[in-house]
This record gives sequence, structure tokens and C-alpha cells, in this order.
Amino acid sequence: MRLMEEMILRDGKLLPGGVLKVGSFLNQQIDPELLHAIGEEIARLFAGCGVTKILTIESSGIALASAAALAMRKPLVFAKKHRTSNVDGAVYSTVVHSFTHGMDYNVVVSRDYLTSNDCVLLVDDFLASGSALVGLVELAKLAGAQVAGAAVAIEKRFQGGGNALRAQGLRVESLALIERMDENGIVFGSL
Amino acid sequence: MRLMEEMILRDGKLLPGGVLKVGSFLNQQIDPELLHAIGEEIARLFAGCGVTKILTIESSGIALASAAALAMRKPLVFAKKHRTSNVDGAVYSTVVHSFTHGMDYNVVVSRDYLTSNDCVLLVDDFLASGSALVGLVELAKLAGAQVAGAAVAIEKRFQGGGNALRAQGLRVESLALIERMDENGIVFGSL
Repeated sequence: MRLMEEMILRDGKLLPGGVLKVGSFLNQQIDPELLHAIGEEIARLFAGCGVTKILTIESSGIALASAAALAMRKPLVFAKKHRTSNVDGAVYSTVVHSFTHGMDYNVVVSRDYLTSNDCVLLVDDFLASGSALVGLVELAKLAGAQVAGAAVAIEKRFQGGGNALRAQGLRVESLALIERMDENGIVFGSL
Repeated sequence: MRLMEEMILRDGKLLPGGVLKVGSFLNQQIDPELLHAIGEEIARLFAGCGVTKILTIESSGIALASAAALAMRKPLVFAKKHRTSNVDGAVYSTVVHSFTHGMDYNVVVSRDYLTSNDCVLLVDDFLASGSALVGLVELAKLAGAQVAGAAVAIEKRFQGGGNALRAQGLRVESLALIERMDENGIVFGSL
């Protein structure tokens, strides 16, 4: 999506250690035109795929998933992160490793809101190692739901998570696909 | 807002201890028509007030604030909760007590995204004791920003937080204003 790439080039900050800061327009502050465009683009990409629900994981994916839910007029379901393993029978639960925070989380979603009648679209902001999406796919499987695919704002393709998920047959759409980024700048690719 | 009141009466669950569960349409799963209507209603209420930014607190307010940001076409800024006091000079920070979780949080927002040129609209899902809104007002004050007011989805008026904030001069709009709720049901009021 051209607007996303333009904003990354104009306002993104590349820090040492391969960190791309997009706080000014995506993470800590969200640009409303970009947010609108993200919702419309996700709706366009997954039109006609039988999506019944949007599934995201708190908290950085919620705004983008809300825009997608509004554009597609489908319910939005949140998976929640817990540090403890204190989950009960009312939820589906799986463990996700956060490379950012260097720890494991339990990711849970209520059984009431994800069923075998659902076909879910996964939405998140960043795709790097893919661990969050793997967790969401697992929650959908536990519920017996189908997965239409995943839409992420920014994929760091060189970290491999997106390609691993695609190799397993998951449709993964990235609104900006970063092939590489270093002191020479950011290079976008396409699928 | 009639749609919000109707959904509370139809799908809300009143639990012992004064807990109103709205997980099926507002908290754990969000109904897209309700989400759209919330954004439009907040935009209508605060039209012409000079709002430059929407400010919310992660994570349960993000979806509603996103809908408001889309309807008003204004940037959305997140305040984040931290359990530690490990904050640095790049942020404004204040302490909020969570009655739900029985603990204090540091609530922080980057200095880059809230300035004395801003007039912010605060958005959250629930208003009970008002502690989260008090924290957001404090962050705005630290930044020298004006506060146009606050919009919440559901106010439990009998818990007093909304009236305390109004007494301090803050405009507080609630899309559903619950005067009381008990074994006899839920009674809505108006300002």
C-alpha cells in the first residue's frame, strides 16, 4: 500500500538493532487517514472470502483491526495476553513467545466468541518472527474455526515469520513488505 | 444513545457485585454497527469543539477511540499502562489506581504526541470511579494541552466518578448513563 510505504520512508525511524520506530503514525499515535486507508485496503484484499470475524491480539493490533472491522462490518474479537497460566475452561488458550519482551505469554480468547461456524481474518500491526500470528492461528484451530488469512501493516520479511506461515498455506497480506533495512535505507518488496 | 442502551438491556449480563458484563458486544467482542455508531455519535457530540487529537488509554478504550478518530479524522494517541515507575524524560507520566485490579499503574504518553497546541478529546469504554479519566486529564495538563471533554461508552453514574469530573468543569458525555442497576434491572438516566 503506497501510503504506508510513503509514511514509513518519511516518518519512520530506523534505530540500531533493526528496530523500526513508527510511533508517530502507527504505534503510539495513529494517523487517521492512514487508519482509514488500512481498513479499506484490508476489506478490499479479503472481500468475498467469507470472513465472519476479525481476530486480533491486544493491544497494538486493536486500532487496525477496528478499522478493518468497520470497513468490513464484521465483529472484532480480541485475544488477550496474560502472564500467568491461570486460565479456565471458558477460554481457548495458547502460549506465545514475545521476542520483543523476551518472555512467554498465554494468549486467550473466550469460547463464546470463536466457534466452528467462524471464518476469521487475523489482523496485527507488525509481522516479524510470526509468533503472534501463530498463536492466533492456534486459537482459531482450537475453536474449529477456519482462517481466511492474515493482514498486517508492516512485515519485516527478512525475519522469516511471514514466509514460514505462507509455506504452511496461510494467506498473509502485508500492507508494507520490508525486504531489508539497514544504514542504506529501507527496501520494499512485493509478494 | 439508544442503540447502546438497547444492546446493554438485550445482551448485557448483570453479575453479583455490581459487575456489568458487555463482553459480547463491547469488551471482548465488538459489534461493528455499534462501533460505527459510537464513532459517529462522539463526532456529533464534539463537532466544532476544536478537537485536535483523541486520547485514550490501553487497551479497552482503543477500539472506541479508533472509531472516533476515523469519524472525526483526527489522530489517535495512546497512553500506555506500566506496572513499574521506570519512566524517562521522553514521556509525561501519572499514577492511576485501578479499582478493577486493585493496584496502581503508571500511565504514560510520549511528549512528542501531546503538546500545548493540542485540544484533546478523552475516550474510554467505562466510567465508574473516574480514575482513568483523571489520569488522562493529568497527562493533558502536564503537556499544557486543552481538554475538550471526555466521551465514554458506559457510565455507572452511581459510582460518582462522572459527577466528580463534571463538578471540576470537565464536559463528560456518556453514550449510556446507568443511574442504577440491581436485581430489578438497569435504569438509564440522562444528563
